[in-house]
Order: sequence, then structure tokens, then C-alpha cells
Amino acid sequence: MKTEERVAENKICPLEIAVNSISGKWKIPIVWQINEGKKRPSEFLKGIANVDRRVLNKQLNEMIEDGILTKESFNELPPRVEYSLTEIGEKLVEILWQLNDWGKLLILEKE
Amino acid sequence: MKTEERVAENKICPLEIAVNSISGKWKIPIVWQINEGKKRPSEFLKGIANVDRRVLNKQLNEMIEDGILTKESFNELPPRVEYSLTEIGEKLVEILWQLNDWGKLLILEKE
Repeated sequence: MKTEERVAENKICPLEIAVNSISGKWKIPIVWQINEGKKRPSEFLKGIANVDRRVLNKQLNEMIEDGILTKESFNELPPRVEYSLTEIGEKLVEILWQLNDWGKLLILEKE
Repeated sequence: MKTEERVAENKICPLEIAVNSISGKWKIPIVWQINEGKKRPSEFLKGIANVDRRVLNKQLNEMIEDGILTKESFNELPPRVEYSLTEIGEKLVEILWQLNDWGKLLILEKE
């Protein structure tokens, strides 16, 4: 690989990582729901249509690993689990709002 | 569907459209390449690893339809075709830079 190509590839790299980290089917809806104050999986499930609980858990764990979410378990009966956005997750929400505004432009363009 | 749920669903709608419009495998790299001044498909192909020309054309056409790109054909021999970003496409690039910066945070978090 030529240096020039390698530079171009490095340049796209953080963007690729960013896109990969949010490209799971339910990840953006999950972030959106948590941002709306719905912290418990039972609450997400109401807001997200037809999501499989196993898939939801996998995607939640990936987002914890990526540093987007934190998980807190409360020692209660019945046990309670809450997810929150990290600082990085909150920065993602700001970008998602911009993508949302950009999506409105796309809709206007189609009309 | 309850009104409350419908409101939540409408709210995510432009974001979903935005995400869908850029979720084709080569779309973000194509936008990135065009933004770097590489306007001709032969030039994109150098910058994007292992892309199938047929897939590339499909994704270019979808992005024209979405209002992200424009295509200009020059009546020359051999025929020349150039793609450019529309105003909407340029707004996308601004958001991609922010996602790129956010990706850098994810990388730092993993280190």
C-alpha cells in the first residue's frame, strides 16, 4: 500500500469505527430511548417495535463495551437494571439530532 | 397504536431516513471520496477497496435519487461522467466530520 493510500485509509478509520458502533439494527433506537429517560429494558421494549430480547441484550452489551452506555444493577427484589448514556453517548445524541435534521432535508427533497 | 407511541415513532422517522440513506456499504466512502475532489468513478475505485462496479453504480444512483449527489455527463470521447455533492450532500459531510471526531473518542476509550 502506497503512503498516500494509507493516509486516506487512516483518515476514514475513526469514521468507520463510529459508523460500525452504531450500525446494529436497534442501537440508534436504544440510544434515543435512553436519552428520552427510558432506562430499563422493559421500557425500551415498549418503544422499539418487534425487537428480540436476546438481540437487544447483545446490542446493549456491545454499546457498554464501546463506552456509549453504562449499566447499573440494583440489588432489589425483583432485580432492577438501568442503562444510562456515558459522556460519549451524550455526544452521540447531539450528532443524531443533527442527522435527524439532515433527514428532514431529505424528506423535503423528496416531496 | 397509541398517540404517544406514534409521536415517538414520528420523532425517530427523519433520523431513520437519514441512517437508511447512508447505510449502503460504500455510500459513506463515496461521499468522502467525492468530498476529497475525486469526481469520477475510476477515481473512487482507487480509493475504495474491493468494490464491485455494479454495486457502486447502484449506490451512486440511490444517492442521486436521495438528493445527496448530482451526476454530470460530458459529451466527449471517451465519455466522461462526474459526480458532485449537492448542498444536502455537503451538509452530510459536515456531520460525517463530527462522527469522525466522535469515532476518535471511541478509539481513545478502547486504548
